[in-house]
Amino acid sequence: MAKENVPDVVIQRLPLYLRSLVHIAERGQKIVSSTELGAWVGVSSAQIRKDLSYFGEFGKQGLGYDVEFLIGQLRRILKSDQTWHMLIVGAGALGHAIANYRAFENWGFYLVAVFDNDPQKIGSPIGHLIIQPMEELAETIRKRHIEIGILAIPPQSAQAVADQLVAYGIRSLLNYAPINLVLPPGIHVAHIDPVVSLQSMAYYL
Amino acid sequence: MAKENVPDVVIQRLPLYLRSLVHIAERGQKIVSSTELGAWVGVSSAQIRKDLSYFGEFGKQGLGYDVEFLIGQLRRILKSDQTWHMLIVGAGALGHAIANYRAFENWGFYLVAVFDNDPQKIGSPIGHLIIQPMEELAETIRKRHIEIGILAIPPQSAQAVADQLVAYGIRSLLNYAPINLVLPPGIHVAHIDPVVSLQSMAYYL
Repeated sequence: MAKENVPDVVIQRLPLYLRSLVHIAERGQKIVSSTELGAWVGVSSAQIRKDLSYFGEFGKQGLGYDVEFLIGQLRRILKSDQTWHMLIVGAGALGHAIANYRAFENWGFYLVAVFDNDPQKIGSPIGHLIIQPMEELAETIRKRHIEIGILAIPPQSAQAVADQLVAYGIRSLLNYAPINLVLPPGIHVAHIDPVVSLQSMAYYL
Repeated sequence: MAKENVPDVVIQRLPLYLRSLVHIAERGQKIVSSTELGAWVGVSSAQIRKDLSYFGEFGKQGLGYDVEFLIGQLRRILKSDQTWHMLIVGAGALGHAIANYRAFENWGFYLVAVFDNDPQKIGSPIGHLIIQPMEELAETIRKRHIEIGILAIPPQSAQAVADQLVAYGIRSLLNYAPINLVLPPGIHVAHIDPVVSLQSMAYYL
């Protein structure tokens, strides 16, 4: 598995293949062609074959892919067969929605702590957790072996909080604040910005 | 402006360029090189020049781009200089978070209605709106000229509600439910799925 040379865009498509394969499996289908999988994801069959070829041979020419086998391989490549610990900073409406989102754990992502700087919120329940003060950030990250930070805070404070998280050892950030974060090399950030999605669609309207 | 032949991936990158340009402008910077803009977005300078070349000449070789001019051009291309009406189906924690998200209106996206099928919620305030029953969907879409539907509902009901929205004239869907929607040609769907983002990052952990 030649990990180093896989383009980021390929890595970003693999979860879409995985999600579609799970739906195909739920319908009871055992084998899928690259053409059919491509139709689900919205890419060409050639793109799927090329993307998967970075990681090995997952099907035989003309026979299609074994759905369950490919799900297992993609789970392994994307490390969704492992357990990851996450925290949220920000216990507003968005933080609550994320904390109550049940699909994370199916894929190995466990929310283990939620932080806020509002004394009114600290100590209150959120999902199955209790909102903690920001002062406990460093110790909680260390003790609970947290690798992933989710930012559900206003854009004004996002960069400062991101810097704190990185200083305390977080290497992956899921950023819901509508702002670009500037971070050291080796730190991965994914943005969730509905405006970006809306703009891409408005182009076609 | 040769709209028809622009690849979807280019359209998906334009909002990222626009977001970075706005941050660059907020710092007081008037001119930006493709190299610097690329560093903000995480793509090469060649990619930026190629993407923008689909829409015309926006800068002179070696002089960089005029930040405000390029912001205006991208707003126009992405139709964020127009006004779009949106609705949300689903008034749970996520629906509330979306309804209170203030960044939409800066880009021409106005939330004008929120729907739910829970009699306990119907009639309650959400953001600056009142939660409406699903029975009013068709009439509200027509009367308020709504073009964009946001799905903030469980995956089990997402396909059925999407079909309803499309039948009532909605052409763009922003889908927060973790499920692939199967829709007629000409309907554009964007997915917001934090698991997909987390999986792309876990690959690098």
